[in-house]
Amino acid sequence: MIRLDSRTPDFDQALRRLTDWDAGLDPAVEATVRDVLHAVREQGDRAVLDYTQRFDRLRANSLAELEVPRAKLREALAGLAPADREALALAAERIRSYHERQVAESWEYSEADGTRLGQRVTPLARVGIYVPGGKAAYPSSVLMNAIPAKVAGVAEIIMVVPAPGGELNPLVLAAAELAGVDRVFTIGGAQAVAALAYGTETVPAVDKIVGPGNIYVATAKRMVFGRVGIDMIAGPSEILVISDGQTDPDWLAMDLLSQAEHDEQAQSILISWDADCLTRVAASVDKLLPTLEREAIARQAWDSRAALILVRDAAEACAVADRIAPEHLELSVADPDALLPALHNAGAVFMGRYTAEALGDYVAGPNHVLPTAGSARFSSPLGVYDFQKRTSIIYASAVGADQLGRAAKRLAEGEGLTAHARSAAYRIREGQ
Amino acid sequence: MIRLDSRTPDFDQALRRLTDWDAGLDPAVEATVRDVLHAVREQGDRAVLDYTQRFDRLRANSLAELEVPRAKLREALAGLAPADREALALAAERIRSYHERQVAESWEYSEADGTRLGQRVTPLARVGIYVPGGKAAYPSSVLMNAIPAKVAGVAEIIMVVPAPGGELNPLVLAAAELAGVDRVFTIGGAQAVAALAYGTETVPAVDKIVGPGNIYVATAKRMVFGRVGIDMIAGPSEILVISDGQTDPDWLAMDLLSQAEHDEQAQSILISWDADCLTRVAASVDKLLPTLEREAIARQAWDSRAALILVRDAAEACAVADRIAPEHLELSVADPDALLPALHNAGAVFMGRYTAEALGDYVAGPNHVLPTAGSARFSSPLGVYDFQKRTSIIYASAVGADQLGRAAKRLAEGEGLTAHARSAAYRIREGQ
Repeated sequence: MIRLDSRTPDFDQALRRLTDWDAGLDPAVEATVRDVLHAVREQGDRAVLDYTQRFDRLRANSLAELEVPRAKLREALAGLAPADREALALAAERIRSYHERQVAESWEYSEADGTRLGQRVTPLARVGIYVPGGKAAYPSSVLMNAIPAKVAGVAEIIMVVPAPGGELNPLVLAAAELAGVDRVFTIGGAQAVAALAYGTETVPAVDKIVGPGNIYVATAKRMVFGRVGIDMIAGPSEILVISDGQTDPDWLAMDLLSQAEHDEQAQSILISWDADCLTRVAASVDKLLPTLEREAIARQAWDSRAALILVRDAAEACAVADRIAPEHLELSVADPDALLPALHNAGAVFMGRYTAEALGDYVAGPNHVLPTAGSARFSSPLGVYDFQKRTSIIYASAVGADQLGRAAKRLAEGEGLTAHARSAAYRIREGQ
Repeated sequence: MIRLDSRTPDFDQALRRLTDWDAGLDPAVEATVRDVLHAVREQGDRAVLDYTQRFDRLRANSLAELEVPRAKLREALAGLAPADREALALAAERIRSYHERQVAESWEYSEADGTRLGQRVTPLARVGIYVPGGKAAYPSSVLMNAIPAKVAGVAEIIMVVPAPGGELNPLVLAAAELAGVDRVFTIGGAQAVAALAYGTETVPAVDKIVGPGNIYVATAKRMVFGRVGIDMIAGPSEILVISDGQTDPDWLAMDLLSQAEHDEQAQSILISWDADCLTRVAASVDKLLPTLEREAIARQAWDSRAALILVRDAAEACAVADRIAPEHLELSVADPDALLPALHNAGAVFMGRYTAEALGDYVAGPNHVLPTAGSARFSSPLGVYDFQKRTSIIYASAVGADQLGRAAKRLAEGEGLTAHARSAAYRIREGQ
C-alpha cells in the first residue's frame, strides 16, 4: 500500500504509475491458443474431447456426453438450500427488472417526399457464455451474463463451464436454470471458445461470446474476435472509494478488502481530504485482514497495489477519480448526488455510506461486468445493448432518389467513384 | 464471378467458401507496428516527426507545424465549388438529423424503500478520427465519423490525416470544418494511431479512435485497443442485392459495380429466383465495366469475388442473405417491406428499386460505416452510441441496504468471498 498526497510535486507521475496496467500479450500463450483454435476448427468434436481429457482430466466418448441435461439444471435449483435459492431468485429478479429498462426499440420516420429512414433493433440469434470452473465458479456471474442476453431476446444461450475432474458447482447450474440458459456443456479453456466460435458437430456456432476466463480464455476470445463478437477483455478488478471521513473506518476497510480478495492484482484506492480518515482505515485494514478466509490473496493485493490518496477537497477527489476512471466508484459521503456532476468516468457508482459495492456485485440489479483498467472512459457495463444489434433502414421514394441522387452523384464524382455516381444518376429523372 | 444454384447439393459448401473471409494477421506488419507504437510512446513528438518524414516525405521542425490551423479549414470550405459545398452541406445536415435520433438519455427509478437505481449516459471526452490520405481521402468518411461523435456531445475531436508529400484534399478539410472537427494534424500510419492512443507533447491522448486505414493503421488500432476504444476493424466492402427480376438490369449491374470499384477484395452478390435476371445483369456488367474509371479494380473484384445466386423463391433469398449477413443489403423488389421480417442480419437495408446503395454512402443520413464480413450478425453501424458510455448508479437506502445486504451476504458466502459478505453484513441492522 502506498500513500499519496496531491500536494506533492510528483503526484501526477505517481498516480500514472499506480494505475498503469497493461495486459501484455504472452507469445507462448498465444502460440498454444493458436494451435487449439486451429485443431478445433479442423477436427471439431474430436479436438475438443482430446483437450478436455488432457486439461480437465475429463474423459468422454462423445461431446454429447459432456452436455448437461436440462433435468440436471432443474434438479440443481430444486436441491439448493432454501436461503440460497431465495437469494439467487431475488438477484435474478432484480437483475432482470433493471435490465428490462435497457431494451432499445426500433424507430422510423418519413420525410415529405415519401423517403423513409429508420433503425431496426434485433437480438443476436445465439450467444455463448463462458463460466470459469472449479473454485472460481461464480453463480452471480452466470446471472449477470445470461439475463441481459435473455432480456434482449437472444433465442439460444449456450453456456460452457469446465468441470475439472468432473466437479461442477450446483449453484452455477442452478443459476443457469434461473437465468434461462438453453444448453450447458462441461468444456472450458481455449477449446471451448473455439467450439463456440467455429461450431463443431455437437456445439453450435454462436454470434457472440461473453464471460470471464483465465489468460488462455481471454487470448482465445481476442483471437476469434471478428468471426464472433466478444465482450471486453477484463483486467483486474478495482475499487475507488471517496470518503468524507464520516463513515465507520471498518466499513470502508472491508469495502476496500472486498476488491482485494478477488485476486492478487486487484486494486483498492481510498481518496479523502481527511488525513485522519486514511490513517484510521489503514489501521482497520491491518486489523481485518487476518480475519478473512482469503487473507493471503487480499494481503498481497493490498500490499502491492492499494493506495490511500490525500487530496485538498471533494472537487479534487472527483478530478482524481475521473482521471483513474475506476470500475467501481464508492461515494461514501453525506451527499453523493452533489459529487455526481463532477464525475464522468466510472463503471458503476455506489452512492452513500450504505451502498456497499458488494450489493452491486450480487443483488442491486445493475450489471457487475464493468469496464476495468481505465476503460470506463470509453466503455460501458455489460448490458442488453450488447446483445442487440442495429440495422439502418433506407427507403428512397422516386422523388427522394431524384433529389438525393443529385447530391450523391456530385459527392461520388468528388471522390472519383464513377460507379457510385452513375448508380445514383440512374435514379435521377431525365430532363431535370 | 461464379454462379450458384441453391438446388445443387454442394450449395451450402459453395456459399461458405464464397463468404469465408479471414483478416489474418501479418507477423511482419505486427512487428513493425509494435516498434512504431513503442517509439512514439517513449519519444513522443520526436518519433512521430521521424516516421512522418520517412513514410510521408513530410519534413517539419515540430509537430505543431503539422497542425492545420482552423482558418485553413474554413478557407477550404469557402473555396469549394458551390455545387460541392451544397452537396456536402446537405449530406452533413441529413447525417446530423438522422443521428440525433440515436442519442441515449440517462434514466433512474426509485423503489419503495428509497433505493435508487439508474443509468447515466455521458459522452466520451475526446475522440480521434483517422482519415486516410492521398487519393483514398474521402470527405464522406469525415462526415460519417465526426458527426455522430459531435451529436453525442464529444468535447474535442482530433482528426489525423496523412499528407504524403504535403498533398491534402481540400474536400476533406472542408468536411472537417462542416462536421465540427476541433483539431487536425497531418500525420498518418501507425505513428498517428500511437500519438492519439498515448498522447505526445503536442497531440493530446484520446479516449477512442475511429476511422478506416490501411493494414498498418488497422493493426495499430487492434494493438492499442484496451488503452483506448476503437471501432470495428473493417473488412472489404460487400453488397448483396435481392432482385425480383423487374428492375432495369443496368441499375442492378451498376449497384453491384459500385461495390466492386472500392477495392479488389470487395464483394458483390446478386440473388434472384429469376434465372433470366441473373443472365441479364451479368451481361450488363460486362457492358458497363469498360465504361468505369476504376475498371481494373472493379473487374478484378467482379472476377474473383462476385456471385450470382439462383434461389427457389423470395423466402430462400432472405434465408441466404441472412446467413451471409451482408454489410449492404439492397431489396430491389416491388414490396421490400414484405421481406423485412425474414431478414435479421445486415448493416443497412436499401429498400426498393430507387434506393441505390450510393445514396446511403453519401446523403441519406444513416451511417456508411457498417459491419463487414458477416459481423452484422452481432454488431451495428457506427452511431452516436459508439461515442456515449453508460455508468450504473446505485443508491441503497438504509432499509434497502439491510434487505439487499442479507441476500448479498448469502450469495457471497456461497462464493467463498468473506470480505464481500462482511462488507454487506455491516449494513444489516443488528438484532433483525
